[in-house]
Amino acid sequence: MTTSYAVPGFDAAGIAANIKKSGAPDLTLIASSTPCRAAATFTTNKFPAAPVTYDQQVLNFNPTGIHAVIINSGCANACTGDEGAANARFTAEAVASALGANDNSVFVMSTGVIGVQLPMDKLLAGIPKAVANLRPDGWDDASRAIMTTDTRPKLFTHTATIGGKPVRFTGISKGAGMIHPNMATMLSTVVTNAHIAQPLLQRALSAAVGKSFNCISIDGDTSTNDTVILLANGLAEHAEITSADSAEYTAFLDVLTSICIDLAQAVVRDGEGVTKFVTIQVNSAVSNAEAHAGANTVATSPLVKTAFFGNDANWGRILAAIGRAGIQVEPAQCSLFITGGNPGGERMPELQLVAAGTPLKYQEADAAARFAQAELDVRVELGLGQGSATVWTCDLSHEYVSINGDYRS
Amino acid sequence: MTTSYAVPGFDAAGIAANIKKSGAPDLTLIASSTPCRAAATFTTNKFPAAPVTYDQQVLNFNPTGIHAVIINSGCANACTGDEGAANARFTAEAVASALGANDNSVFVMSTGVIGVQLPMDKLLAGIPKAVANLRPDGWDDASRAIMTTDTRPKLFTHTATIGGKPVRFTGISKGAGMIHPNMATMLSTVVTNAHIAQPLLQRALSAAVGKSFNCISIDGDTSTNDTVILLANGLAEHAEITSADSAEYTAFLDVLTSICIDLAQAVVRDGEGVTKFVTIQVNSAVSNAEAHAGANTVATSPLVKTAFFGNDANWGRILAAIGRAGIQVEPAQCSLFITGGNPGGERMPELQLVAAGTPLKYQEADAAARFAQAELDVRVELGLGQGSATVWTCDLSHEYVSINGDYRS
Repeated sequence: MTTSYAVPGFDAAGIAANIKKSGAPDLTLIASSTPCRAAATFTTNKFPAAPVTYDQQVLNFNPTGIHAVIINSGCANACTGDEGAANARFTAEAVASALGANDNSVFVMSTGVIGVQLPMDKLLAGIPKAVANLRPDGWDDASRAIMTTDTRPKLFTHTATIGGKPVRFTGISKGAGMIHPNMATMLSTVVTNAHIAQPLLQRALSAAVGKSFNCISIDGDTSTNDTVILLANGLAEHAEITSADSAEYTAFLDVLTSICIDLAQAVVRDGEGVTKFVTIQVNSAVSNAEAHAGANTVATSPLVKTAFFGNDANWGRILAAIGRAGIQVEPAQCSLFITGGNPGGERMPELQLVAAGTPLKYQEADAAARFAQAELDVRVELGLGQGSATVWTCDLSHEYVSINGDYRS
Repeated sequence: MTTSYAVPGFDAAGIAANIKKSGAPDLTLIASSTPCRAAATFTTNKFPAAPVTYDQQVLNFNPTGIHAVIINSGCANACTGDEGAANARFTAEAVASALGANDNSVFVMSTGVIGVQLPMDKLLAGIPKAVANLRPDGWDDASRAIMTTDTRPKLFTHTATIGGKPVRFTGISKGAGMIHPNMATMLSTVVTNAHIAQPLLQRALSAAVGKSFNCISIDGDTSTNDTVILLANGLAEHAEITSADSAEYTAFLDVLTSICIDLAQAVVRDGEGVTKFVTIQVNSAVSNAEAHAGANTVATSPLVKTAFFGNDANWGRILAAIGRAGIQVEPAQCSLFITGGNPGGERMPELQLVAAGTPLKYQEADAAARFAQAELDVRVELGLGQGSATVWTCDLSHEYVSINGDYRS
């Protein structure tokens, strides 16, 4: 039996509109038969792509009447000026018209090369084809048509019990480079049939993104297009969630956070050229924000990431990165631990490499054995306070250089 | 006729002390027959290496009585705790004793693997050998014994006329990774026979470093060991420079800045795996600091650097990096220009790619031709104010990944 990704009231499709030179699928449509309450988080990049700016307006104007999300890959529609802005609007209006929905009821997302205008003839011709392909079990197609350098789709589904009733969540996301979300993320859409007040929907999404998409980094480059959209059509039979203090809100937030972590970690595992999944934990910092800054600096250091790639237990680079992170550090208080294992498997015993800022007399083979695992866990204790953060990242490989030295050909 | 690097009153040596497994030269000694006035800038990394902390004490205690600089490669003496601190002091004291100089008259620098203790038996055995090799023309040896992953030595000499008299400057530096100076730099030592008051020496060095070493980036990783030392023995025959408003100070600062730029650019040109030398200029920012932050973000973006490596004119990544730099940006005010050429050769005509945040209809072949040059110049105009900055950087290649995936073997 195959997994069902269907969520009552939602349909999905993914088709080829020939935006990509390769002819691979490049247009995804997600639609709801009833109007949805919506929430979203967006990139903080100062060159926001045209669809980001458009979606912010739609969310502001019509947060409770959303019918669809249209997503193209192959062209980011970023750094495209007034023409790009008009193209994002035309795309949304064409989808609304094809679905018989109102204006300002369709979100747009784009991903691909920056600085190129959308091929509107191909895109507009693809929309009726996408509409014709909409179906409750179209999620696999939808997750494939948003891929760029991704090697596999990212598609997850969860079911929670809220107010005694089953509630469904399905989400898709894409990577696989320019990933270093900053209060936002790469492209992801999550839909649910939960019944929840719109302000709480936004509150839950912001919290879930803070613990998932904002905790990953492939290469430290925050994209112009990062967007996460959450649609809730309210078709589930539980009573509307109206209080952030209710058990039902907590249950909703828990499952939303879980699916966002699944989607975010899947982006890292399928990062460009990735051979290793690394968890960086920084604890006992003076604040959570400082812990996050420290973990992020380790996660984005090319020297640390190449050592991960080379299975080289060159931990001095980890402390050197912590030391330049702009956070409070007392070398004599600092300790460092590592462990590793296989995906989903047991971890080796944790090995302490540094105590009081000074190397311990561990066996090099013990450190090397942990660095050689497919999943590596690094724990830095700053010994200063209660701040803690976890960031998920990957190594920097020859393949990353190959992919990105030749991305547009 | 070969260049003479000699500076009156200074001797230099570089020998093999077997600190490196390879047996390559790894111990450099620079000595002055008379006490020097000294200036220095140091790393801002919060895990400063033991020699950094030691040198700060020496400079504080004895800024006008310095006799020597001892530099080992093969071991950074960083993250080495109390034992490392004692080893830095022992090294300096052994050199002072061998030269018949006072305590607190010798600077120490180390470069190499972090988190490993110095092999003091080998280092102390090497000191008498280094002293025996000191000679006025020992600079080539000195510049080679500080190399780690560098493929060639960085050694420059300049002669200026100050107060009507010839004044000599010679400097050495090393790269080639963990290069992203922050109010300091990798290892470099510059000596001169200029006669200048010590506070002006420090003022001039800080200004020159601000326009040279602090404007380069290989990989965004600020080292634990960054140090620039400037020694002036005052043997030149001009009158002592005592005023920052004098023509003599200006002449001194100009030549010092020139040699620091030579040394800094040489570090970039010989960066790990470098195939391309790139100049990033950000103009019309709201301040010089914002221009520098923007240029630095472009210079450290893995996506930008891999596009440089791949000769791919994927300029959207440059604007995306500017957009996440945390600086004031108005996309509609922003324009982008590129040119390129061979080292020291003429540039191709400048090509404008973006105006008002929107791509121009340039020929792709014209952009590709510039990206294919050995030297590429990128100019971003933010159109907001008077702030300007230039950063010199390089591409990110397969070879960088190979070198750093396997650094310690």
